Amino acid sequence: MTETEQDFARHNARMKRVQAARERMQARRTLERGLLIVHTGNGKGKSSSAFGMAIRSLGWGMKVGIVQYVKGSWETGEKNFFQANPDLLTFEVMGEGFTWDTQDRARDIEAARAAWERSKELILDPDYDFIILDELNIVLRQDTLPIDEIVAFLKDRPLTKHICITGRSAKPELIQIADLVTEFGEVKHPYHAGFKAQKGVEY
Amino acid sequence: MTETEQDFARHNARMKRVQAARERMQARRTLERGLLIVHTGNGKGKSSSAFGMAIRSLGWGMKVGIVQYVKGSWETGEKNFFQANPDLLTFEVMGEGFTWDTQDRARDIEAARAAWERSKELILDPDYDFIILDELNIVLRQDTLPIDEIVAFLKDRPLTKHICITGRSAKPELIQIADLVTEFGEVKHPYHAGFKAQKGVEY
Repeated sequence: MTETEQDFARHNARMKRVQAARERMQARRTLERGLLIVHTGNGKGKSSSAFGMAIRSLGWGMKVGIVQYVKGSWETGEKNFFQANPDLLTFEVMGEGFTWDTQDRARDIEAARAAWERSKELILDPDYDFIILDELNIVLRQDTLPIDEIVAFLKDRPLTKHICITGRSAKPELIQIADLVTEFGEVKHPYHAGFKAQKGVEY
Repeated sequence: MTETEQDFARHNARMKRVQAARERMQARRTLERGLLIVHTGNGKGKSSSAFGMAIRSLGWGMKVGIVQYVKGSWETGEKNFFQANPDLLTFEVMGEGFTWDTQDRARDIEAARAAWERSKELILDPDYDFIILDELNIVLRQDTLPIDEIVAFLKDRPLTKHICITGRSAKPELIQIADLVTEFGEVKHPYHAGFKAQKGVEY
């Protein structure tokens, strides 16, 4: 054997051991039920990652519902796509924009309440397998909805479906009851280099 | 005015100031060109976030190409969805599975090389606006493709389109030339609680 062939043979033998170790690890993972998923942190990707899971779920024939809590008054790529393909999933744009744009606390509370009531309907509807509550964390962080009420409902949720909640600054009470939490950390963001938010990337 | 009304009025006035500050900040962000995006870290969501940006891009009428470097031999939600909707985007599954499953270094190198050649075609094709190189980081980390060659090509890339590269353990050389880098941090993962990987979430 050449030196390269020897290297490859060693690599292949090592991978056989890695595979065996992974199989033992997978065999211990037997639980299966609907997960409560939280995407938080200052980095980019929290909502888009939820939309990606929606696509995966659709690929398995699962029924998906999305409620957007903040976005609403402006055009986004996801809104264009899902509204152009209404048979794919239920897409409810119930936000009225950032609080600094609405400048109306009473209206913010009313919009958030309506979005939460719709979210509860989708969560309780046995037809749905995956529910995304996009930017709910923002609303909770601003106490526009009471965290205790939301946590009590989610603790008692049907365990037959996944729920994914996005938005920076997730409340500790929510992280505590979640099954899967990812913190999206900003390493480099083009904003700081003077770039505009761009179609397809940020919205 | 009641106390609540006073609170709301103060909130609304503050939001007006926040809005003005944000508008000044946005006015300084004027650059616009194709971004090199890297999703790395041990947390969940790197690939799904890229697929979510694909959906956003489709919503803006952009043309999207995806090359998968590792996944391939097994069924995934994204593969099911994109292959069932072939008119949406170009989806190339060119991986042959994890190295611990292939156990064949020579074959891994050949598959990665073919995926990279196809990636270059898509990147150089002026029709495409958004290219995803899913799990390329894994291949680079294992030196299955030479990082110097990939970095040299990407530095010289057309700036008319976005490129998103995913996978844990991104090489520092890649992070250095990227415009947008998100580190996906694992806060809680259901694996550790004994859960299986689940449809719609992990694959």
